[in-house]
Formats: sequence, structure tokens, C-alpha cells
Amino acid sequence: MSPVGEDKMATPVKVAKTDSWDDCFHAAVEVARQAGEEIRRAFSSEKRIETKSCAVDLVTETDQKVEKMIISTLREKFPTHSFIGEESAAAGEKVELTDNPTWIIDPLDGTTNFVHGFPFVAVSIALSVNKEVVVGVVYNAILDQMFTGQLGKGAFMNGKPIRVSGQEDIKKCLLIGELGKSRVKEKLDKVFSNLRAFYNEENKTHGCRVLGSPALDMCQVASGSGDACYMFGAYGIDVWDIAAGGLIVRESGGVVWDTTGGPFDMMSKRVLCASSEKLARTIAEGLTQMD
Amino acid sequence: MSPVGEDKMATPVKVAKTDSWDDCFHAAVEVARQAGEEIRRAFSSEKRIETKSCAVDLVTETDQKVEKMIISTLREKFPTHSFIGEESAAAGEKVELTDNPTWIIDPLDGTTNFVHGFPFVAVSIALSVNKEVVVGVVYNAILDQMFTGQLGKGAFMNGKPIRVSGQEDIKKCLLIGELGKSRVKEKLDKVFSNLRAFYNEENKTHGCRVLGSPALDMCQVASGSGDACYMFGAYGIDVWDIAAGGLIVRESGGVVWDTTGGPFDMMSKRVLCASSEKLARTIAEGLTQMD
Repeated sequence: MSPVGEDKMATPVKVAKTDSWDDCFHAAVEVARQAGEEIRRAFSSEKRIETKSCAVDLVTETDQKVEKMIISTLREKFPTHSFIGEESAAAGEKVELTDNPTWIIDPLDGTTNFVHGFPFVAVSIALSVNKEVVVGVVYNAILDQMFTGQLGKGAFMNGKPIRVSGQEDIKKCLLIGELGKSRVKEKLDKVFSNLRAFYNEENKTHGCRVLGSPALDMCQVASGSGDACYMFGAYGIDVWDIAAGGLIVRESGGVVWDTTGGPFDMMSKRVLCASSEKLARTIAEGLTQMD
Repeated sequence: MSPVGEDKMATPVKVAKTDSWDDCFHAAVEVARQAGEEIRRAFSSEKRIETKSCAVDLVTETDQKVEKMIISTLREKFPTHSFIGEESAAAGEKVELTDNPTWIIDPLDGTTNFVHGFPFVAVSIALSVNKEVVVGVVYNAILDQMFTGQLGKGAFMNGKPIRVSGQEDIKKCLLIGELGKSRVKEKLDKVFSNLRAFYNEENKTHGCRVLGSPALDMCQVASGSGDACYMFGAYGIDVWDIAAGGLIVRESGGVVWDTTGGPFDMMSKRVLCASSEKLARTIAEGLTQMD
């Protein structure tokens, strides 16, 4: 449970590390796979390939259709649960995280990738209980990579256990970065100066990769194919992008912090993931914060 | 044939667009697949996963082993052909492109990715005849994506035809970029100012993705999942990174130019790929050139 969440609650209730969320976990994996099929179909459709302008409509159409399918499927199984979804929020629904079991859903993470046919497009589904994520599923529908995590039970990719790299040295790390959606000069100046803080003569990293899917960025760190990533709300991210990924990183042995180095609050729209505390600290200290 | 190549030759001989290189094409695909198996094995080995310092040795070991295998296999089939290979060049062999059929080989494109387990690692094999590439194969060994091209016969991914997006508008394009291997300030200033030339308030692109494999960058453009990419020798690229990719982009309907906007010379260590001439011109005009 994030300390921030704990502070806010009158009587913090620790989530029991039992089997009790197994049904939810299996339901999440199943519905993510169904959603993935829908996304794959739209990704490969002539409509997307022939005209990119249509693709922008198609992404909205797919987004909404997939989110509705996910919510109705889960609601039928778990009628007392609450829901936070990117598309529902866009349609004006209040984004409120309570102690009630709450599904946090991004039906299509990586919308620009979807439009262009760049194969990093994911479904992200998390279940939060007492404001702590207990189930996290991120499914790269195009590359068929199912990343999963359950609180206290480890993290997996296509059923095989994954671990962070454990890298501590910024000079030996591969950063997974994002450049964000904003094109406002002041914001871009910060985005690029943050990147160059870890990409210069003194503070060399091995390199930086940019994938355009926050949920999948976090899964690269979880599976050890990247060593760290960080994101701010100014990049266009929100709770549905990072809730599932955050659990998967922690369950793979990684560190999930606020970008300032404080405790992670998934509602804050800021996240720093790293393969070790030492690396996380180096990055938190080097970052110019963005609101 | 690139005009640059043509100038240099006393009696330019046009390559016949016949079946005559089919045997070479099939041999290249077969040996790329074998090389991919070797790379996949090393990529998944405990030695790479457990200690990244070992991984650096492993990459060299794999690089050399795979290049030897590719060259010996092709030399047995085509004993009169010449060879240019990254590892052979590193070992001091002269890099010379003549009119003789010449295989240009990068046994492992994306070495940093290999070390970190980031799944963009490719084998690149091109056959040049009269200084024109007639066969190009780029195989992403981890994601099992085989990109192929034959002069005048189109480009394919896993046997299915691929096409560039045809995008003309920089404001609607997804750039595939590289940040390069150099950490020298002057070079980095240019790398980042080039990126920001297409990433600002006036000249918005949809975004930029960074994969760390020049050969695969070019294949993203060829398959329409990116709209353009450019690279300079200062990024650490050489003829073996771009020879096969260049043909694959052209055969998928794309533009392959020098970064200045002039004709492409694969020996120059500079390349600009785009989904249309208009987009290529916009990018060439916006770039600060690097030697």
C-alpha cells in the first residue's frame, strides 16, 4: 500500500496476501486477451492501414468498444466493484479511487502507435483494493506479450517469471523514456533536459529507448529489458497508464517511486520505476520535476 | 544503382531484373534464420541474464561466431563472391566495395539491446552487385520478424508484402530516431537539436520512437509503422547497418536518400528514409548535417 494512500485512510486495512483475488486475476487475464483480439483486428484492418485519418476515428471507436466490453464483462462477474476507465473519464465520469475494489482500465495504451501501426499497443487492467493494486495485467496485443502481476505472488510474461535487471549504476543502464504529447516549448525544454541529464559526457547511460506506451515501458523495466523509466502527468499519462504496470514492476523486484523519490501515489500522475533503489535515487535526484 | 556508384564506375553495368539472384536470396533468408537461432539462444542464456558484464563478452562472442557462420555458409555456396562484415572489419579486414557480387553483413545489429535484453536485435545481410544491392534481409531474431527485399520484386515481412505509409506531412508523421553512441557534447547537441527540429510548437510530429537498431528502424519505415528515419556515421552506423534496410525501404515504395537530400551512397554512412519524397525533402531541409 502506498504510504500516501495510507495517510488518507481513516482505518488502513492491509490487503491479505491470500488467494482471494485469484478469480479477479483470471478474469482480468481472460478479458485482456479478448480485448487484445479486438485491438489486433482493428490494428490489421484495411481501414487503419489505408487512411491514417480514418485511423484516428478507428482508435476512438476501438478504445470505446474495448473499454465497454471490459467493463461489462467484469461488472457481470463482480457486480459490487467500482470502475475507473480512460474512456469513461473522457466521457465525463468522475475519477474517484475509494477503498472499494476498483478496476482501473486503459483499453488501448499507445494510441499514436495504434494509428501508425507501431507494434506497441497494450490493454492495461488493474484491480485496486483499499487503494492498493492487487492484480495487474498489461497485454501487448500485437506482439502477444501478456505481462501479469499479483500482489505477493510475483510477476510473469506469458506465464514465465520475470525479474528486474537489478542494475544499480546509471552508467550501465538502458533508460526507457517518453517524450510526451505536449509540444509547448517550456514543457519540451524540461523533457529534453531531463533526458540529457542522463545522456551526456559525465553521466553516460548505455542508451535510451522510446516506445510510446507508458504501460509497456514499465513492463520493460519489470522484465529487465530496460533498467528504469519515469513519467509525468505533463507527458499525458494518468492512473490507468500506470496502475497495473506499477504492481508488475514491484512484483518483479523493482522500485516504484514518485519522481521526487517519495512514495508512489498512482493518482498523482507521476511515476519512477527502476531496477534498484540506488538507481531510482540517482534518477530522482537528477530529474527536473514537472507538474 | 546509386548515382554515386555509377559515377565511380568506368562502364556501368545495370543489374538485370531477372531471377538470377533468387538462389542468393533464398540462401540469405536461410542463413539469417540460422543466425537468428544462435542469437536467440545467446539472448535467452543465463550467462546474458545473470550478469550484464558477461553479456558484453557474450555479444562479442556471438557477433563473431554468427558472422563466421554466415560467411562460411555463403562462401561455400558462392565461392567467387566477396564479403564485407562488421566483425571482419573490426578485425582489420579492408572494407572495399567492388562490382563483384559482395555480401554485406551485420551479424548482430542492436548490440546494446542484446546486452540489455531489449527485443530489437537483428541479423542484416545484403548482396551488392555492381555496387547496387539486389538482395536485402533483416531478421529480428527475438520477435521472429523476417524483413526481405529483392531488387524489382518488392519487400516482405514474414512473406507478406509490406508498403510504406505514403505519409507526406511532417505534422502527421511518426519519426523513428536514434540518439547514437557518442556522448561528446558537440555531437549530442546536434543529435538533440535535430530531434527538436521536428518536435516543437511549429513543426509538430505525432511523435518519435527510438529502438536502438538502425536496420530495424529502416524496416519500420518500410512496413509503414514509422514514416521516416535518418542516421549519420556519427551515430556509430556503417554500411552493414544500412545496406539491406535501404533496399527493403525502396522495394516497399519508400525514398532512400543521403541526409543532405542527395542520392544515397551506402558507403557514406549517412541515410535518410521516408515514406514519400515530400516528407524526405522536409526532413533533409530541417537537418543539421553531421560528419
